[in-house]
Amino acid sequence: MNKKNRAPAKIRQIDWSLCFIADSQASGGRDVLWLIEEAVAGGATIVQLRGKTWTVRNFLRLAVQAVELVRPKGIPLIINDRADIALACRADGVHLGQDDLPVSEARKILGQDRLIGISINTPEEARRAEEASADYAGAGPVFATLSKPDLQPLLGLEGLRRIRTETRLPILAIGGITLANVGEVMAAGADGVAVISAIASAASPRQASTKFIETIGKVRKNPAPQIA
Amino acid sequence: MNKKNRAPAKIRQIDWSLCFIADSQASGGRDVLWLIEEAVAGGATIVQLRGKTWTVRNFLRLAVQAVELVRPKGIPLIINDRADIALACRADGVHLGQDDLPVSEARKILGQDRLIGISINTPEEARRAEEASADYAGAGPVFATLSKPDLQPLLGLEGLRRIRTETRLPILAIGGITLANVGEVMAAGADGVAVISAIASAASPRQASTKFIETIGKVRKNPAPQIA
Repeated sequence: MNKKNRAPAKIRQIDWSLCFIADSQASGGRDVLWLIEEAVAGGATIVQLRGKTWTVRNFLRLAVQAVELVRPKGIPLIINDRADIALACRADGVHLGQDDLPVSEARKILGQDRLIGISINTPEEARRAEEASADYAGAGPVFATLSKPDLQPLLGLEGLRRIRTETRLPILAIGGITLANVGEVMAAGADGVAVISAIASAASPRQASTKFIETIGKVRKNPAPQIA
Repeated sequence: MNKKNRAPAKIRQIDWSLCFIADSQASGGRDVLWLIEEAVAGGATIVQLRGKTWTVRNFLRLAVQAVELVRPKGIPLIINDRADIALACRADGVHLGQDDLPVSEARKILGQDRLIGISINTPEEARRAEEASADYAGAGPVFATLSKPDLQPLLGLEGLRRIRTETRLPILAIGGITLANVGEVMAAGADGVAVISAIASAASPRQASTKFIETIGKVRKNPAPQIA
């Protein structure tokens, strides 16, 4: 499939390379805003804020600060799950799980100009995400991860390739992505990767982000021959 | 204070007498929609749906069904915490805690025609709720309760009376309200009571609601002399 026709007009300009997910449960005691600042300084192109353990009030307070931090740099800020918080902090979009609001309902609330992403684990979920006019799919878990242990089957590179053939949506691969495997993940057809601990737990989150961006850039320049 | 000028125009027609809170954690294994149906059949005048332990998808599904159930009877359905779910299910409003979205943000999301209630524990919180243009205040906990154990000081009847003198907002008293104390709670200045387990755990939720309504009606007809 031609990469050029993957994304609808409104999001053609978004750089999907590297999404840093700033998670209330996986910041390792580090300041979340500092982590976001470092990740973006290092090259992260999207930030998602996930706050299952924060009160709504604290989540909103952090979200407002995060938007102030990344907006001047042209980096989209995505809120996990809560469309109401996304509206209140004027985020660029929302990321939904399969058990969250349906994409269609989130779209009514957020309108056409905000991004709506959805987590998918199967080609069927990828097809439904596209039918529901999601803006991107978070495909995973590709590999095992401790950041968000769940019972879903691991996709592996093979599963990722299968999902790639099923959807024209931009794909952010997620789950156990590291500097050691990001190359093959991109080669399997991802448009970018979403990373939690590989940045949040790195000695230098900034350097980790830079290395991800460099590796992703290299794969894009010299794509390995793909096995269909 | 004259009761007639308590409520703003848009909510003057709401009967605040008895709010049944259908809670995911306090339905005692009973079907939540059945509980709502019984409570309303017995006379509950408002229903709030609280779903901290449901997935968002399930919360929304139940909320849509609850709205279908109560709207034909003219009973408002209020969603706890989540303004996005309230929008998606076309609820009549949202109920916020002090750690949830600020009233002002919820108002931007929900507009002027939906109800916004807020939990308050002090006269100061009552004043701020009124300044923020909340539509009603849930004042509590009046008495000790197992439905929502928390660390806030109990208001008692004295605390409730003090809050009554501080705000013109309709007051729903909450926390440990039973048939045995609802009379004195109303006499202390509440416009109505919010009840979880006294209805959800009753042998007959319908009869329990009817008895609440009868007792509240009697107090309104023959108000006891108030001690200032």
